[in-house]
Amino acid sequence: MQALVLEEKGVLSLRDIDPPLTVGPDDVKIAIHTVGICGSDVHYYTHGRIGPFVLREPMILGHEAAGTVVEVGSAVKHLNVGDRVCMEPGVPNLSSRASKLGLYNVDPDVRFWATPPVHGVLAPFAVHPAAFTYKLPDSVSFAEGAMVEPFAIGMQAATRARIQPGDVAAVIGCGPIGIMVALAALAAGCSRVFISDLSSEKLAVAEQYPGILPVNIRERPFAEVIAEATGGWGADVVFEASGSPRAFDGLFDLVRPGGAVVLVGLPVEKVSFDVAGAISKEVRIETVFRYANIFDRALELIASGKVDLKPLISGTYDFTEAIAAFERAAAGKASDVKLQIRLADGP
Amino acid sequence: MQALVLEEKGVLSLRDIDPPLTVGPDDVKIAIHTVGICGSDVHYYTHGRIGPFVLREPMILGHEAAGTVVEVGSAVKHLNVGDRVCMEPGVPNLSSRASKLGLYNVDPDVRFWATPPVHGVLAPFAVHPAAFTYKLPDSVSFAEGAMVEPFAIGMQAATRARIQPGDVAAVIGCGPIGIMVALAALAAGCSRVFISDLSSEKLAVAEQYPGILPVNIRERPFAEVIAEATGGWGADVVFEASGSPRAFDGLFDLVRPGGAVVLVGLPVEKVSFDVAGAISKEVRIETVFRYANIFDRALELIASGKVDLKPLISGTYDFTEAIAAFERAAAGKASDVKLQIRLADGP
Amino acid sequence: MQALVLEEKGVLSLRDIDPPLTVGPDDVKIAIHTVGICGSDVHYYTHGRIGPFVLREPMILGHEAAGTVVEVGSAVKHLNVGDRVCMEPGVPNLSSRASKLGLYNVDPDVRFWATPPVHGVLAPFAVHPAAFTYKLPDSVSFAEGAMVEPFAIGMQAATRARIQPGDVAAVIGCGPIGIMVALAALAAGCSRVFISDLSSEKLAVAEQYPGILPVNIRERPFAEVIAEATGGWGADVVFEASGSPRAFDGLFDLVRPGGAVVLVGLPVEKVSFDVAGAISKEVRIETVFRYANIFDRALELIASGKVDLKPLISGTYDFTEAIAAFERAAAGKASDVKLQIRLADGP
Amino acid sequence: MQALVLEEKGVLSLRDIDPPLTVGPDDVKIAIHTVGICGSDVHYYTHGRIGPFVLREPMILGHEAAGTVVEVGSAVKHLNVGDRVCMEPGVPNLSSRASKLGLYNVDPDVRFWATPPVHGVLAPFAVHPAAFTYKLPDSVSFAEGAMVEPFAIGMQAATRARIQPGDVAAVIGCGPIGIMVALAALAAGCSRVFISDLSSEKLAVAEQYPGILPVNIRERPFAEVIAEATGGWGADVVFEASGSPRAFDGLFDLVRPGGAVVLVGLPVEKVSFDVAGAISKEVRIETVFRYANIFDRALELIASGKVDLKPLISGTYDFTEAIAAFERAAAGKASDVKLQIRLADGP
Repeated sequence: MQALVLEEKGVLSLRDIDPPLTVGPDDVKIAIHTVGICGSDVHYYTHGRIGPFVLREPMILGHEAAGTVVEVGSAVKHLNVGDRVCMEPGVPNLSSRASKLGLYNVDPDVRFWATPPVHGVLAPFAVHPAAFTYKLPDSVSFAEGAMVEPFAIGMQAATRARIQPGDVAAVIGCGPIGIMVALAALAAGCSRVFISDLSSEKLAVAEQYPGILPVNIRERPFAEVIAEATGGWGADVVFEASGSPRAFDGLFDLVRPGGAVVLVGLPVEKVSFDVAGAISKEVRIETVFRYANIFDRALELIASGKVDLKPLISGTYDFTEAIAAFERAAAGKASDVKLQIRLADGP
Repeated sequence: MQALVLEEKGVLSLRDIDPPLTVGPDDVKIAIHTVGICGSDVHYYTHGRIGPFVLREPMILGHEAAGTVVEVGSAVKHLNVGDRVCMEPGVPNLSSRASKLGLYNVDPDVRFWATPPVHGVLAPFAVHPAAFTYKLPDSVSFAEGAMVEPFAIGMQAATRARIQPGDVAAVIGCGPIGIMVALAALAAGCSRVFISDLSSEKLAVAEQYPGILPVNIRERPFAEVIAEATGGWGADVVFEASGSPRAFDGLFDLVRPGGAVVLVGLPVEKVSFDVAGAISKEVRIETVFRYANIFDRALELIASGKVDLKPLISGTYDFTEAIAAFERAAAGKASDVKLQIRLADGP
Repeated sequence: MQALVLEEKGVLSLRDIDPPLTVGPDDVKIAIHTVGICGSDVHYYTHGRIGPFVLREPMILGHEAAGTVVEVGSAVKHLNVGDRVCMEPGVPNLSSRASKLGLYNVDPDVRFWATPPVHGVLAPFAVHPAAFTYKLPDSVSFAEGAMVEPFAIGMQAATRARIQPGDVAAVIGCGPIGIMVALAALAAGCSRVFISDLSSEKLAVAEQYPGILPVNIRERPFAEVIAEATGGWGADVVFEASGSPRAFDGLFDLVRPGGAVVLVGLPVEKVSFDVAGAISKEVRIETVFRYANIFDRALELIASGKVDLKPLISGTYDFTEAIAAFERAAAGKASDVKLQIRLADGP
Repeated sequence: MQALVLEEKGVLSLRDIDPPLTVGPDDVKIAIHTVGICGSDVHYYTHGRIGPFVLREPMILGHEAAGTVVEVGSAVKHLNVGDRVCMEPGVPNLSSRASKLGLYNVDPDVRFWATPPVHGVLAPFAVHPAAFTYKLPDSVSFAEGAMVEPFAIGMQAATRARIQPGDVAAVIGCGPIGIMVALAALAAGCSRVFISDLSSEKLAVAEQYPGILPVNIRERPFAEVIAEATGGWGADVVFEASGSPRAFDGLFDLVRPGGAVVLVGLPVEKVSFDVAGAISKEVRIETVFRYANIFDRALELIASGKVDLKPLISGTYDFTEAIAAFERAAAGKASDVKLQIRLADGP
């Protein structure tokens, strides 16, 4: 089959490749319909590696995917041929200590699509465990189905934050992850979600959503805005979604006594961290690594209309134009939140 | 001053009465603007008692109130004369063991408005501790301010439920409390909230809200609807808001394995309880007694527009018509959610 | 191989039977050393059923077991031939929704040893998934290893209680489960654990442990003792471990405002439940169904010496005397906590 | 009365001073019996300040105290003249937003003994709110009562850690706080508590306690010991109690996937923090600021004998020798955990 293959750093090709597609008893085979381009796909393209994961041989890209079930393993009960689905791209060892605890995202043996040496799914077909394949409600399109994966990161952040209804949140960074976090925080019960960035174009995307309040920190310090909005008390929850080391300067000025800070962004280097600032407010700090047990609930929110991800799809490309889509993604236009590639017809 | 006084069971009068209104250093004096009629006010009127609380001498009714600060104690910092406010009607001993734990609602020494022998606030003025008096945001009317108290019960239920974003909830009973619980659960992150009742008029009120799904159990068993809606898994959270002993039959059929049941309704007698049904799903059961630390967050949600309580105000009466308002409330029309009495002019 | 077979209600035989013992890639084969007799084993013997589980054909009894690994599946990494181990008797479907959440104990598809139609392990050999087979630390004997299963129920109860260090607990019922709960609560941080029963012989067993305080309710009401011991405040956590419907009378008198009640015992019929009593203290009620993710931590506590289960082993029988052991267990002597059967030599 | 007064940095005197000792209705007056010397007392003595708190006029030192009630305010119910008590040295504004939430330790308005400009209690008498004065059980001596305050920090850390029974803990730093944390973690349900330091003398103190396992990191890396002890999994909870910036190097190597890190030690400067290390294991990080709602539970554990603090009292001085006691404390002998000063006779 023809797939989008990252041959080596900087070299993409749309060409034939035939990884094994054996359907085991607990698996399903999926005809891929839509795949979103993630920052990590782009990073493998431009850098050939992410941290310890190094591209050593050609690899199919793509891990944000939706499609249609075309074959069902003998032991699969909850899915049928013809079901429209989206897929959770990380597959843990279900017998591991972490998985038994319900923390399968931190199982060290997780195999994750488009993370060397595991192929991704920018290809006509993929085989996946049924346990990590989720049926799309009728009201959810393939395009939205392919948005579940990036939204799941926001949902994991909002879940770990343990938001109480009516909380005020502050999100640092209005990139694709920051927006997903803000939408999830709002859906999870926050009354107001302030989001900061240096880019007014990025903030303009967030501003479309009632309840998300953009703050351009070129104009005004974020801590000042939060203090004013909360009568000097601070935000109940602060999400760090920029990955910028500078975000850690004054981080604890944003949060209320006894509040929570959730670290989602991944700084490349170590950061300078104000332990005394955290301790003096007895802040709880949560960290987020991908997601676990989120896809069902993310789909519930999308299907119910409480979360609308469609405004975040900045462009859609045919599979034949996949390389052009990656070029645009690599250009990093501020107003581009998500580009998607369609491999099949239909809505 | 003239107040609405419950003289004895069944006898209301609008007459002069002068309880002390001394403003202590931590108190504020409030000119009352709007007061909602609660089921408990009506119950004292019709029965003269609620459980161990027995009316023994004339008592001013009313505890769901909003108004304007007219005098401020010497030690009060966060309120000023002229501030529009609503009030939390229960005042605990802040030095008690429960209060120190943040559980001031279960402090045995709480004094609660319109609970014998403590006067309520269907009167032109009241004095209250500033710590339990909350400033209304500009966008929140007095009528909405007087709705915070009943909504706070729903918020307490939703908070104790520990809802995760995207959860599915089931609410038993579509009376005033059931609707408040459903709205709070929705605001707290639920994707869908099913609510059951025998009365289609009550369900029609709930049906106005997108995301709240009415189920008339004359037509179809609630458990069947929930099973169908969740693929046989069950609701993540079930709220019992009817206070009916029959609600406990099959209660645990509604909930998913590992889910939560929140008891809000107060049955008069003991109920028949299926311990084995709860254990076999390892259900967590929470109970709700009034509220603590809820008013700020309830106001946040109302001010943000995420929760609209205005459609629940079924009628508004002038103070001179207060007794007529109580007569209507006592009649218990199914479509009446909340009746309010206005003591002052202005919006 | 020769096994202890329950032929039908009331008929035990020690005879040859050969269930399949195929070792799959994720399994281990264990030479069974010691097996404890559980109340459920005895109940199948005397009644032929437990609730919906009915004995329809001969079944090997026994599910509290320790032994030695004699064969290891090809994919097993953490166990080797010769390892001394104990086994978690319930095996879930690891791909199920409950298992993915870490709640594998409430997976409806759990297969549990000695629960019809699944054979138990009162036999020389058993095959089991390695993921549910736990290596015994050197300091833990086979006899103690076979006590991990019943202790795990107490540990699950103590874990779900969310005990804070220094909490005071009350345990209703001093049978084998009550004692396990009390020991687990003490190990989990309680300062004092009061335990009630009608039998002074049962209480005498518990009294051996410093920190466990027996209360004979023939002599004094439990609530009175708890009130006196806590200055009228109540126990932080109350465990119902008797399964008696009478335990629910005045249950909430034992607990402090904002405290927790944990239901472990399984009444046969529905109970009369005081919702108002629970609500007025805003009690949290947890229920316990077997255990999940407990065996490692139980073994840690036994190996460290913080929990000593040896005094609870009331008698040990050779496998040839297994039927006599069951006769004694069925007699239900008050001072018998646990009888064990040894199938192999060595300590 | 004669008190131990810090006149200015480096200058102590035992001299007459008469701060007001008015007993308000909610207060008690206490004859001080024993006061422990805290590192903060010593630091004010040697540096004249701690962070933003600067000594500007003479101040009585001491905040770890026990004594006897000699006068009781008119509204006090739970204490009587003659009661032996210990005192929580921080007094919040009970009406504050933090206090209402049960987080009175992070109320910005807390007044704390021996923190400028608030006097401490190295004096014959003190007046204190009854709500923050705790009766000593008969089995708890004054010396132990004066140890409750430093132990409370360990208890707060163990409480925020949310230890599950049988957890393995690692404590970095074996100073007075590290030992208190280790003892609290053990009492809170840990099976094994590893504690690290560079000083074998400090570790020797900890080693007296079964279950606390000392690790001299001059001999072996802490992470290596923890990995070996947990089969490569990591500690369930890691407590940072050294306040050393170097403790943050490799901090997350110690903890298991999904585990918790609790920050107790207070580094003077910002530290270099490995966000990626925390995120890849999805670690929860808690911070600890003093304590709230801990004294009752700490006293329960001491009275029950589960926690023995007596071996940590390294020396006891008469009040007349108080300055000598401070000289010894300032010398910082490794084996000195706690020095105490006695102001009255009797045990």
